[in-house]
Formats: sequence, C-alpha cells, structure tokens
Amino acid sequence: MTSTDLSIEELVALLPPERQDNFRRLLFGAPVVPLPIPQAAAALAEAHHFDVKLYKTPCKPEELNPPRVIRYAVAQHSIVLPTTAPLNDQYTAIREKVERLIDAAAAMQVNILCLQEAWTAPFFFCTREKHPWLQFAESAETGRTTQFICQKARQHRMVIVSPILERDDRHAGTIWNTAVVVDHNGVFMGKHRKNHIPRVGDFNESSYYLAGNTGHPVFETVYGRIAVNLCYGRHHPQNWLLFGLNGAEIVFNPSATVGALSEPMWFIEARNASIANSYFVGACNRVGTEVFPNEFTSGDGRPAHKDFGHFYGSSYCANPDGSRLPGLSRDRDGVIVNEVDLNMVNQIRDHWMFQNTARYPLYARSLTQYCQPDFQPQRIRSQYVSSDVSRRDVKANSPANRSALDGEDC
Amino acid sequence: MTSTDLSIEELVALLPPERQDNFRRLLFGAPVVPLPIPQAAAALAEAHHFDVKLYKTPCKPEELNPPRVIRYAVAQHSIVLPTTAPLNDQYTAIREKVERLIDAAAAMQVNILCLQEAWTAPFFFCTREKHPWLQFAESAETGRTTQFICQKARQHRMVIVSPILERDDRHAGTIWNTAVVVDHNGVFMGKHRKNHIPRVGDFNESSYYLAGNTGHPVFETVYGRIAVNLCYGRHHPQNWLLFGLNGAEIVFNPSATVGALSEPMWFIEARNASIANSYFVGACNRVGTEVFPNEFTSGDGRPAHKDFGHFYGSSYCANPDGSRLPGLSRDRDGVIVNEVDLNMVNQIRDHWMFQNTARYPLYARSLTQYCQPDFQPQRIRSQYVSSDVSRRDVKANSPANRSALDGEDC
Repeated sequence: MTSTDLSIEELVALLPPERQDNFRRLLFGAPVVPLPIPQAAAALAEAHHFDVKLYKTPCKPEELNPPRVIRYAVAQHSIVLPTTAPLNDQYTAIREKVERLIDAAAAMQVNILCLQEAWTAPFFFCTREKHPWLQFAESAETGRTTQFICQKARQHRMVIVSPILERDDRHAGTIWNTAVVVDHNGVFMGKHRKNHIPRVGDFNESSYYLAGNTGHPVFETVYGRIAVNLCYGRHHPQNWLLFGLNGAEIVFNPSATVGALSEPMWFIEARNASIANSYFVGACNRVGTEVFPNEFTSGDGRPAHKDFGHFYGSSYCANPDGSRLPGLSRDRDGVIVNEVDLNMVNQIRDHWMFQNTARYPLYARSLTQYCQPDFQPQRIRSQYVSSDVSRRDVKANSPANRSALDGEDC
Repeated sequence: MTSTDLSIEELVALLPPERQDNFRRLLFGAPVVPLPIPQAAAALAEAHHFDVKLYKTPCKPEELNPPRVIRYAVAQHSIVLPTTAPLNDQYTAIREKVERLIDAAAAMQVNILCLQEAWTAPFFFCTREKHPWLQFAESAETGRTTQFICQKARQHRMVIVSPILERDDRHAGTIWNTAVVVDHNGVFMGKHRKNHIPRVGDFNESSYYLAGNTGHPVFETVYGRIAVNLCYGRHHPQNWLLFGLNGAEIVFNPSATVGALSEPMWFIEARNASIANSYFVGACNRVGTEVFPNEFTSGDGRPAHKDFGHFYGSSYCANPDGSRLPGLSRDRDGVIVNEVDLNMVNQIRDHWMFQNTARYPLYARSLTQYCQPDFQPQRIRSQYVSSDVSRRDVKANSPANRSALDGEDC
C-alpha cells in the first residue's frame, strides 16, 4: 500500500498553482533555486532510470570573507539482483549502479557525495542470519569497496562518504557499521562507526555489532568540514549536537529505513538537526523492497514473512536557515545536489545565536548527574499526589467520568 | 502578505479528496480521531469568535497497567485593546478573553491547559522600552493573575500552566519570563523560568531578563507529569531532553513567534522533541499583529516601524509516536485538545528504545570536555588541507571553475 503513495513533492504539485508557493513556504521555508541539469548527467539518468536534482541555496555575499561555494549531494538506490543470487554478483551489480550515480554527481560538479548506509549489500539485519550475509563485511581501510571509492574520488576530485559493513581484522574480526571518508585526491581520510544501534522492529543490528567507539569525528576536507551521523543516530539530538560542536559544516545521515512508523519522522529529524545546529544536512535512504531467502518474524504478531517492507527513499538536503530542498522520490534511484556557500553556517549562527544561548555547562552538569545511580529527578509534587491517590484521582476526573457528571454530549 | 497565507490544514483540504489521507500520513503520521465538540464549548466558541478542536490519540490498552486517559490542551489568542489603551484596561480585556478560553476548555473536559507565553500583555520586547511595559510584571506566587488562575483551576478541577512576566520581589524586584503551574485544586504548585533567552530579530528579551535559574522542573500533578519549555527553548534540544530525563510525560511550549523565518521551523521543532523524547507536546503561539505607540528599528536595515509582524498561531499537539494533531489557525483565537492515554509514553519508549540507546555518559563526558577553555575539537584533517590551501583548492574546484573546465552547460 504505502509503496504506491505519492511523495510530498508530488502531492504539492496537485494543489492549485497559486497556492503551491504558500505551501512550500510553510513546509520547505525560504525558496531554493533549481539549476539546469548538465547534459551529461541528464543522459546518464535517462539511460539508467534514475533521477537527478540540482538546486542552489541562496546566501548573502560577505565583504571580509570570500565565498566558500561548494556542491554536496546524497544518492539513493535499490539493490540490483535478488538476494538469492551469488553474493559476488549481487555486490558487483550494486557497485556498477553506484558508479553511474557517482559519475552523474561528478557531471553535476559535486564536490562532496554521500552514499546510503551499508550501500554494498541488501539490508539483511532483519534475518538475524550471520551466514552468508557477513561475507559482505570488509576492511574499511583496504577492502575492495574502499579501493573502488578511492579510485572514483581521485577520478572526479570528489570527497566521497562510503558507508559499509566493516570487519575489523586488527580486533579479532569484529563487525561494525562504518562510514569511510575518502578525500578529493582518493586518499583514505578516516572512518566513523555508528554511535547508536537500533532495537526496533526488524532492525536487529544489535545482533551484529555494538555502538561505535570512534566518538564524533569531523573530517576537514578541502571543500569544508563534514561529519556522518549514521542512520538511527538521527533519532538522537545529542549525536547531531556533538558533530556540530566539533565543527561540522555539513552532516550526512546515510540511512536505511522503512514503513509507516518512521516515514512521518523522516521529514522532521534531520531537518531539526540542521536548524538546531545551524549546519547543512544531507539525508539519504535506500529505495525498494528487499526479499530474503528464508522467512523471519518481526516481533509484532504478524506471521513469518520474507520481506523487509518498503524503503521509501525521499532523500533530501536541509539548510541551516530552516529551509530544505524538495526530496528525491519514494521509489526510484537518484542523486540530489545542493549548491551552498558554507559562509551561511556562521551567518545563521550569528542570526539565531543558538550556540551562544545553549548553556552547555548546565547540560554537562545535568547529564553527569543523570548518569549517577542515585540520580534524583527534579520534581515538584502536588500535595494531592501519592502514587495511589494519583490513579484514583485520574479515574475520578477522566473524560469519561466527567462527561457523565456534566451531562455533556461527548 | 504572509498573514493572508492559508494554514497547512487549509491547504491539505484543497487536495483531491482521495489524496488527502496520503498527505496526512506523510505529514501528520498515524491518524488521530476527531471527537464531537460538546455543545457548551461550541456555543462559547461561536459567541466569541474562536475555534475549538478536540481529538483523541489512539493508544493500545494494557493488561497490567490501568489506562491513564486525560485531556490536555493549549490555547492561542490575540491581545484585545490597542497598546495605546490604559494598561489596566488592556490587561482586563485580555483576562476576560482568556477566561472564556478556559471555560471552553473546561466544557471539553480538559484536565491540563497551557496558556501562551506572557499571555497577560502585548509582546512588547521589540520596543526595548522598560516604561510603561514592565508594569505588567507581577508576583508569580501572589499576583492577581495567579489569583485568577487559581480560582479558575479550582472551579474546573483543571491544572493550568500560566506563563507571565514575573517580578521577583524577594530578589530586588528582578524580572523573569516565568510559567506558573497551578494544580487542580487551585493551589500554586511552583514555577519555571525560561532557560534560553533569544538574541534574534525583535526578540530583545535579553534587555529585560536573564536565563532562568530554576533548572528543569517536572510538575507531578494528579493527571500526569508535566513540564514547560518556554518559547525560544524549543530551539534547544537539550532543554527538551532534560525535561524528559526528569520524567515529564507532557511538555508544553508556550511561545510568541512571528514571521517567515521561524514559521517553517514551527512545525519541526516541538514535534521533533516529542519524537526524540517519547513524550506528548503541546505548543502554542499567539495570533495577530501588535502595533506599538513608538517606532523602533529591527537591526535588519528596514526603516523604523511600529509593528512586530504577524504572530501566526498554528498551535498544535504532537504525540510520542511521531503523529500530530491538525493545528489551530494562523489568525484566530482557539483551543485545541488532545485526549491521550499517558501509557503511550512507555509504550513508545519500549518500541523505539531511544532512552536505552542514548549513551548519556558519552554525552556527559563530551559536553564537559567542550566546556573547557582548552577544548580540542575531534577533527581529522586531510593532508591537503591547511587554512590557505583550503581556500585556494575550494576556488579551483568551485562549480563555476569546474564548469569552465568541463564545458558543461550550467
């Protein structure tokens, strides 16, 4: 059902034309400017059935600081072969698809590109099967995927964020959910491991790896300072915060998320982060429905089944001034590009002053207290509340009861 | 211009009927249930030209915990008399209007009601005039407004959150932006002072009062545990967080905000807080345009003027599952009510496990380090970056330059 729903952008286009700007202002904030798609990018997109979108976010010029205009992008895609195909064929087919997305981004003169979470493989965590899927894990530093990314980065002078499943051979072959960052000369810069591991629905990732031990690194590239908030970390405002405090100007959120429960949150969380931290955000999600060989249950009373639901794509970029770009579709591969002046970060920080008014020492103290086993929450209790009285009183005053007393009609 | 825009809800109603549910699912999440408006509430609303809305948020029944069904609400309104009228007449007229809103809430069997920020007065901080406006400040404990609220709370057995401008006579008459909480028996429970003071636009509040010194109190009422995040605190995810860590089940965000810049953020921030902290939220904003006797400038290059722009209302309630109620209008007074089962808070915490996966000790340590004068941000620098090289390289690779090199068409 929900895989056939229209996207927000498609729905807005159904409004009377004279009301569409009203809607975009309320939903998407200050207008961004669509730019023409370079012919080479359009040709790739048409030949290989994906979408390309390119926008410019306006920014005030400054007198004392030169502009720092760059283009950053996120890509979304489905897997290619069935999950029953030989694993190496699955891997190779995805990599060929991603190479075309990278080439299209390059044709749009992208400086920094982020791929989706665990992009080299189907998102198999729903199965809880270690074999055969963990064969997709590889070295972050020297694996064939990083070699491929380094080659593409060097070819296009593009910084690439490549989220993969990592096997750490220096530490007994442990598994991590890791984003590799490669610089514009094709040199491995470093990696970041996912900080927050889901315990929800079919996201059984806690069966595979633990919370990351790489802190909140910011990668200082020639194009600007970037960081990676992997997937479920987007639900954690503190994770976004720390990347900002370490100096990130763009934070990517490579994700893999499905279903009715998370989709209304998708438009809220990454965008809230760009507002609260006054930085740019690029959020991407995979697309399509992945079906696995063996059935599994979902802990929700449904019968066993083989699919993980619909990955709804809808990748987008958000700006520090609260505006956002229209998103990619709910079901097609694509690349979306945001041309920005990184000077906007400090301009918006100066305007809103969130960083100056954040009272970090208060929160450092409060969180430290909260972590103590004998933490006492700050509560002011009504003299009429005890835990028993509370229940009785709520019952006496519940709408149902008051309705009976008042003779109201509802 | 923007004061004549339609609200999101009015725009959705312009969509083809068969697409409206699609849109509401993406924008508003799981459906809420409109309940019939009790006749007494409808009559008050019609006679006094305000809107009333009443919804029920569905929640699973539990076997081992009795339901904790309550109704909470937020109210929005404009001032009544011109700001040139005698101050006491202005105050009395607003209080009469608010009394009718409270009575309408009572007719809808509301258990907990929150009024808007500094509801007793025009929002005069744009003027930077201390005289005459600070005469509106009064004792939080014993002022006439708290006396009025206590009387209404007792009359209706309603917990009321009453944000006012406080004069603290125990501390040399200092001024605070304060929310008073009165329990269902009309007894003053306590107060909370605004934690984060704006430095943006015409919100010159830092000329009047300082950041609050009351921490993050949660008020344990017979209907549930509530807290108050005053206005600009909604931009600060840590402020929302601490109310949650202290046990709040409903957090109110009484606000006064205007204009094109903040409006697209209004739909994001409070809702993100309800998602990230798995609690209910009620966010209210005043409505209308307030014009002051003396002209003032806004620090944005515009000529001096006398109005503060359009307070766009749009008060709404948001649920921990990521859903929200349709909002009140952009220009009319109103009350919006959410009937909820507070058991939903723990149900959603169990489902998403955000609190279990939040890694608070990591953030306590990181924030503590950040507050040190010699803090070193965690950065990984490309070997090709120095601050000078960085600028040259960005220039060499900027879209404009690469475009020239590549002969692309944009």
